[in-house]
Amino acid sequence: MMNLSQFLSSRKELIEARLPEYISRLQAPAVIKEAMSYSLTAGGKRLRPALVLAVLRAFGKEEETGIPAACAVEMIHTYSLIHDDLPAMDNDDLRRGKPTNHKVFGEAMAILAGDGLLTHSFGILTDQQDISAEMRLSLISELVRASGAEGMVGGQVADMQGEGKTLSLTELEYIHEHKTAKLLGFSIMAGAILAEAEADEKEMLRTFSYHVGIAFQIQDDILDIEGQQAKIGKPVGSDEGNQKTTYPALLTLEGAKEKLAGHIAQAKGILLEMKIDSSLLEELCDLIASRDH
Amino acid sequence: MMNLSQFLSSRKELIEARLPEYISRLQAPAVIKEAMSYSLTAGGKRLRPALVLAVLRAFGKEEETGIPAACAVEMIHTYSLIHDDLPAMDNDDLRRGKPTNHKVFGEAMAILAGDGLLTHSFGILTDQQDISAEMRLSLISELVRASGAEGMVGGQVADMQGEGKTLSLTELEYIHEHKTAKLLGFSIMAGAILAEAEADEKEMLRTFSYHVGIAFQIQDDILDIEGQQAKIGKPVGSDEGNQKTTYPALLTLEGAKEKLAGHIAQAKGILLEMKIDSSLLEELCDLIASRDH
Repeated sequence: MMNLSQFLSSRKELIEARLPEYISRLQAPAVIKEAMSYSLTAGGKRLRPALVLAVLRAFGKEEETGIPAACAVEMIHTYSLIHDDLPAMDNDDLRRGKPTNHKVFGEAMAILAGDGLLTHSFGILTDQQDISAEMRLSLISELVRASGAEGMVGGQVADMQGEGKTLSLTELEYIHEHKTAKLLGFSIMAGAILAEAEADEKEMLRTFSYHVGIAFQIQDDILDIEGQQAKIGKPVGSDEGNQKTTYPALLTLEGAKEKLAGHIAQAKGILLEMKIDSSLLEELCDLIASRDH
Repeated sequence: MMNLSQFLSSRKELIEARLPEYISRLQAPAVIKEAMSYSLTAGGKRLRPALVLAVLRAFGKEEETGIPAACAVEMIHTYSLIHDDLPAMDNDDLRRGKPTNHKVFGEAMAILAGDGLLTHSFGILTDQQDISAEMRLSLISELVRASGAEGMVGGQVADMQGEGKTLSLTELEYIHEHKTAKLLGFSIMAGAILAEAEADEKEMLRTFSYHVGIAFQIQDDILDIEGQQAKIGKPVGSDEGNQKTTYPALLTLEGAKEKLAGHIAQAKGILLEMKIDSSLLEELCDLIASRDH
């Protein structure tokens, strides 16, 4: 039996070996390929790609068929970080301990590198020859909904509009559902689509991904208060500085922890109902609830 | 017989009626929909959408089936204008006589509006129910290649890198092929895909679009020298101010005009070889060669 930490570290390695191939074969000016690669290979947990593979595994399917979707979602995640870090957005100089994309390549190139990654993620899904055209379209459709104005971009907008205001729990939930949960949801749904899951299984996994995504964000907020600067690589308490509403601010730290536990319990409850080998996904729920960076 | 100017004005009206529908049905924060609509409805010739429909018409097919691709390419064109106008890029305050997107909505929202339009263009192609899954994938694949790092984004990068330098004709051609011709080429190829053109017809149209795209850009450079500020809505001679290499600068004004005529002649030559009703496309070639704005 493989445990989650073995799974995550081996799949991180696998994905990090495959991601650069998608960039190196592009016929494009060297500098844009460098700028795209720079952020794409800057590390991170590779949680979104690993989720695609974990769901395939839970259905007893080959993980290989999930590599393109896994790389596509990591490109979307990376593009969003590049654009978020821009001076006009969060104005961050460092990301995972390295200078942000625009600090190295300049703002104009960073904008274009993000645009290039966003566009190419759809190219990767389009080109996957070993699955049916219908399946490829389902993946593309999911990715559009998860990442565009109806998903991550919309969440980002709501987040910006909420700055400096005290949000209601509903408003905060909208932000995190769209900004975080939807793209994690793409990973899970991509695994389900590729595993040819039944419609009811897909619906259950969609609900599962909602709980996991919100839990992930609550834990992020908790870490921002409790975490150690060295471990998470950004100043502790930065949300407070940004005047952003957080779960602990609305619910107290204790209340946020209770809410986190509730979402994790619901996510695990869904897994129990499903006829899949969900051991890795259950461990993932526990990891999210207890992660320290 | 409909002439080109009737065709362009009626199709501009048609596309301008359909574009807002794609935004209004998005489930997204009102402000991002406003920002996306603002630039999408800011006018322009709607040449790229009209080209999709003109090619369908040349093959004797219904134009209606081209509406989604026509709207998708206009969204890509619009996103590229929003991002190009940003302070970090061209830093333009006006576009078609109206304040640019970031002047109205702020830089962060403009970046996100561009990201939203880019993402949604793929959603539109994915959702077109009246054509086969294979055809939708062909359209998506063409749009990725035309607009991403291998296309428009790559051309934009090459353009930025060429600023302040005197480029060779090959370098200048690379920029304009990628920055301008590829996206016009998408329109033409989309029409050909939807019309179920034969492989050799598609190849001829791809070459046709290359000549038309380069001709379009040469005429742009010529207009920059000869045009009147009021007609083109930007300061005459602005390329010179930007220290950009132009065709007239490399070839003299007379030489640029000869090159323009050469590309137009080749484009029309291709049309003559094809068994399609190419009257509108021929007129379009003449229009590009003689347009004054």
